[in-house]
Amino acid sequence: MTIVNFYAGGTLDRATPLRKDSQALAGRLARPQTRILAYWRGRHLVASGDDTMAPLLLSPGEAPDLLDQGTPLFLGLADGEAYFALDVSMLDDISGHPALGAGRPMELRPLATRLDQATGSLLAYVQALMNWRQRHRFCGTCGSPTEAIDGGHALRCTDSACAAMIFPRTDPVVIMLVHDGDRCLLGRQGRFPPGWYSALAGFVEPGESLEEAVAREVQEEAGIRVADVRYHSSQPWPFPASLMLGFHARATSREIRVDQDELEDAQWFERDWMRTNLGSERFRLPPREAIARQLIDAWLEDRL
Amino acid sequence: MTIVNFYAGGTLDRATPLRKDSQALAGRLARPQTRILAYWRGRHLVASGDDTMAPLLLSPGEAPDLLDQGTPLFLGLADGEAYFALDVSMLDDISGHPALGAGRPMELRPLATRLDQATGSLLAYVQALMNWRQRHRFCGTCGSPTEAIDGGHALRCTDSACAAMIFPRTDPVVIMLVHDGDRCLLGRQGRFPPGWYSALAGFVEPGESLEEAVAREVQEEAGIRVADVRYHSSQPWPFPASLMLGFHARATSREIRVDQDELEDAQWFERDWMRTNLGSERFRLPPREAIARQLIDAWLEDRL
Repeated sequence: MTIVNFYAGGTLDRATPLRKDSQALAGRLARPQTRILAYWRGRHLVASGDDTMAPLLLSPGEAPDLLDQGTPLFLGLADGEAYFALDVSMLDDISGHPALGAGRPMELRPLATRLDQATGSLLAYVQALMNWRQRHRFCGTCGSPTEAIDGGHALRCTDSACAAMIFPRTDPVVIMLVHDGDRCLLGRQGRFPPGWYSALAGFVEPGESLEEAVAREVQEEAGIRVADVRYHSSQPWPFPASLMLGFHARATSREIRVDQDELEDAQWFERDWMRTNLGSERFRLPPREAIARQLIDAWLEDRL
Repeated sequence: MTIVNFYAGGTLDRATPLRKDSQALAGRLARPQTRILAYWRGRHLVASGDDTMAPLLLSPGEAPDLLDQGTPLFLGLADGEAYFALDVSMLDDISGHPALGAGRPMELRPLATRLDQATGSLLAYVQALMNWRQRHRFCGTCGSPTEAIDGGHALRCTDSACAAMIFPRTDPVVIMLVHDGDRCLLGRQGRFPPGWYSALAGFVEPGESLEEAVAREVQEEAGIRVADVRYHSSQPWPFPASLMLGFHARATSREIRVDQDELEDAQWFERDWMRTNLGSERFRLPPREAIARQLIDAWLEDRL
């Protein structure tokens, strides 16, 4: 059974061959049925509903001024109609814009609990690409400006002698619940709310496998050795560009040595104690939309 | 059981806290026992042995001219001694250099079969970092030059108002053997040698899980739908910056539609036919150091 974490589970057809068909994309941008999502300075424009929220969907005719300025990013097709995302960060004030004014700019993470799964994935997709474009306005090889091509899914250096191509960046991160029979290893960073603990995590380094990254990070952060490193599931995490790769691993040593540069604390937690205290002021876990919680719950509920 | 593919299985202690201790690193670079690997224009300097090959290992005293010019990259510790890598691409001719002249510049891929596993991983680590530095000489946010910090494991924008930090880039790629009982789905690109087939593969996109990337790529490249997507193992693949994430998946449709932009051909192959014909001119598979072959062999040998 494949586990689908939050920020995955998108229903859009990415229709990747269309990206290279600039004529077809121009045609889609002239079509009133086409839908455009707006992204403004790290926030998504959403329309308020009662319980759930959804992105504000503009028709091309509602935003001709904006389409002229930015490069719309082709997202894909839903029910045969094209979806694009547009960065409108060049506007200082969006509340006065005739079309954008109907939306509210919201950051993705606090919004997550009010989005359905497909929308969460759609906005994760938009956000990851917008973050990438923002950080690749210039070519890393020669320093010249880049330009968006392929419906916004590639950037090309504008220096014709260089012409380097830059593709979206996704940073693989391993996140792992280490256990030891009836105990598991959780850590907390100083920036976490009081009582909050989570699974350990860290970026995969060049020249190592995922399993080696798991073992190295657990050793570095908590001084614990592991074996039986087992993949659980994965999750896009566009804050700004991560892909979380979730594992369980069995501890083969016991004594914790906390790396104070990385963690404020790390401890062994008894399963029964966790069940009893979860939700109290002294013990909190990440929300269910985070893969960390999925890894912890799978172990707590004996589903390894 | 954790599967360790080629280019993984390194034995070096990365000793990551040392990266930020520039004084300690300077001390290591003054120590004769320290070992330096040289990288020249995409090639590793190796010393020839009889059957196996190993990197040429320089002592700091042998290369004072080079250490002044480049920024040595701290790799880690082995038996308590530090290992660094140095890019010597500024030299037009290395054969005449007193220390470098003893080595032979070799590309990693053709060298792979003559390296032991730990050395393969060490050179993969060096190559991935060198490729990354080469492509991030300028800041993507503002276009200013970058400078190496943290023992070469981070780049910082030299414009103090920007000061963007750039970390090593690793591109996650899914690679999957799709099977259907006694048949598996293999494809070939036009650039492959005659008769050569392999597992399908593709870059993970922003806003999708690994399992979704597997399903999307198989659908795009061969028109086949899959279920039961199961993780097998991973492999660093620094050509130039990939991390291969290997899966098996079960086909739920049969009729292949080849995307001619991606593949020259894709076919169902019978297990018995593969066993009989493997190695003949009409049917070849990737070498055992490639995760593609490991995925195929696991299925061929009923080890799923």
